[in-house]
Amino acid sequence: MNIDKYLIEKGKIIEDYLKAVIPSDDSIPILYSGMRYALSSGGKRLRPILAMAVAEAVGGDYHDVLSYAAAIEIIHNFTLVHDDIEDGDKTRRNMPAVWVKYGLAHGINIGDALFAYAFKILADSDYTPRLKATLLKILSNTVFEISEGQALDMSFRNESHITENDYFKMIIKKTGVLFSAALEGSALISGANSDILQMLREYGRNIGPAFQIRDDLLDLTEGKGRDAIGNDIREGKRSLMVVYCINKCDEHTKNELLSILDKGREKVTNDDVSRAIEIFRTSGALQYAEKCCNKLAQRAKLAIQQFPKSDAKSLLTELANYIITRTK
Amino acid sequence: MNIDKYLIEKGKIIEDYLKAVIPSDDSIPILYSGMRYALSSGGKRLRPILAMAVAEAVGGDYHDVLSYAAAIEIIHNFTLVHDDIEDGDKTRRNMPAVWVKYGLAHGINIGDALFAYAFKILADSDYTPRLKATLLKILSNTVFEISEGQALDMSFRNESHITENDYFKMIIKKTGVLFSAALEGSALISGANSDILQMLREYGRNIGPAFQIRDDLLDLTEGKGRDAIGNDIREGKRSLMVVYCINKCDEHTKNELLSILDKGREKVTNDDVSRAIEIFRTSGALQYAEKCCNKLAQRAKLAIQQFPKSDAKSLLTELANYIITRTK
Repeated sequence: MNIDKYLIEKGKIIEDYLKAVIPSDDSIPILYSGMRYALSSGGKRLRPILAMAVAEAVGGDYHDVLSYAAAIEIIHNFTLVHDDIEDGDKTRRNMPAVWVKYGLAHGINIGDALFAYAFKILADSDYTPRLKATLLKILSNTVFEISEGQALDMSFRNESHITENDYFKMIIKKTGVLFSAALEGSALISGANSDILQMLREYGRNIGPAFQIRDDLLDLTEGKGRDAIGNDIREGKRSLMVVYCINKCDEHTKNELLSILDKGREKVTNDDVSRAIEIFRTSGALQYAEKCCNKLAQRAKLAIQQFPKSDAKSLLTELANYIITRTK
Repeated sequence: MNIDKYLIEKGKIIEDYLKAVIPSDDSIPILYSGMRYALSSGGKRLRPILAMAVAEAVGGDYHDVLSYAAAIEIIHNFTLVHDDIEDGDKTRRNMPAVWVKYGLAHGINIGDALFAYAFKILADSDYTPRLKATLLKILSNTVFEISEGQALDMSFRNESHITENDYFKMIIKKTGVLFSAALEGSALISGANSDILQMLREYGRNIGPAFQIRDDLLDLTEGKGRDAIGNDIREGKRSLMVVYCINKCDEHTKNELLSILDKGREKVTNDDVSRAIEIFRTSGALQYAEKCCNKLAQRAKLAIQQFPKSDAKSLLTELANYIITRTK
């Protein structure tokens, strides 16, 4: 299984599908072009690819899950559009964020339109009413939990009492549930039995947080295609490394770190960012996050050990490996 | 039929229902209290009341449409939360707007959570899968059209070539479709036949715009419980009166009006607002808007003339009268 080839191949399919379902004209000015812009900025398309992989892994046809996979990817992008406004991020995947390009007001509205469009795709799909009702339940719960996760994430800023449990509760909602929804919904569409569903749930419960911790770590190196390296530090985000330091560092180091994080994003200097990263390194927080990430991926891979088809198992295993080793 | 009593009675029922379905704890800080705040600020509850009225009008039980009616009202409130940010409105129903009370970032997220919650209520309802799938189609199309209407509304600002057709296209999407969704969805839940559905569609197509034109007019008197009278003028909104003046006034008057509307909301003085209202009055725009509003209500009432039950007909007639005579 060449995972890079798989990602490119399936990524292209979902890319074409998205282009085909999103309005291609400009009869509603700004809105339609804004929707296309939000969806065209690349991205790994990891969630819909996971949905397609699951369809194949359980012996189904990936074509059958395309509507659902597109809805998942559109929901993901809607959250990015609003998150960028909420976090004040001006760049996304090395391009101006939607709200920067179209203004705040249209930015919010473009996000809302994407949100509605995801549900419209589900409504207009060929799935049976029973399946639609089930997928509606998954998707609506998922989006609501994402907003809960975002609320927690924002509430954690300027907060110095955050446990690892708090952190995991937050990232499971903010990031994990959409991965799980991609896996579970696709398995249901593909007619998977309850054993398989259970395995995939456990798999998703682990790769979601693993993905997020890798994201936390990537912010310190490649900068996730945003303004700069250490954006999360500038925003005062409570990453796993921050939570580790809050609970494990001596009072002095902890306070030094918090004083950088809580400065307000405009005031944080590049030196501050370097110092925070140094604290992460010397305290063992970086190593700890790496370890957590690997442990979660191990658990995900373990969860699918009993998968009936060996090529399916190998595909999902490779995807879990990709998630924790990716560099962007 | 005492319409005031009916509105109070049914308004109370939907009020209680909303309280019961929305999270009542604070396990997700800010988010849950923000959702309650957004929903608790009063409002006429006109859309869910219309849904309940339709259920009764077609011989159904209003209890059966409560989930759907609540979803409709929550969607309405989600749009208000985001509209206030997009328009820069700081007050809603004489209270601080959600984004003013909770900050911009949480304001956007609270709106998103309400949006998701409306679909969650539909997903968790007792409706059959087939009915859920149909209502999902109505609601997702409706919310998408609302975002289209909002995009048009915002694009019209600073625009001097707007026809009455443009205006109606915009308000039908921004306001009309949610009224139609309340009526049509409720009729479907209540098992109405296709003749009745057709009558209600025509009724909705007319009371929606009538409601919006009354809203445009109310902005010039009671101020809709927002910052001040003439808020729409300060925002440069293209109301029906503005569209009338753009197309019917002499060049000089038209330019004078546009120079006020396009100043930017902070720069518009109370004198400017008075002058704009005077232009609306002397040009005949006010009378024209009143006439349009009445004509639409007449058409709505005509649409339900063949309604089988006379008390149902009288209820829907009274509701149409209320919509065009309301003073808040």
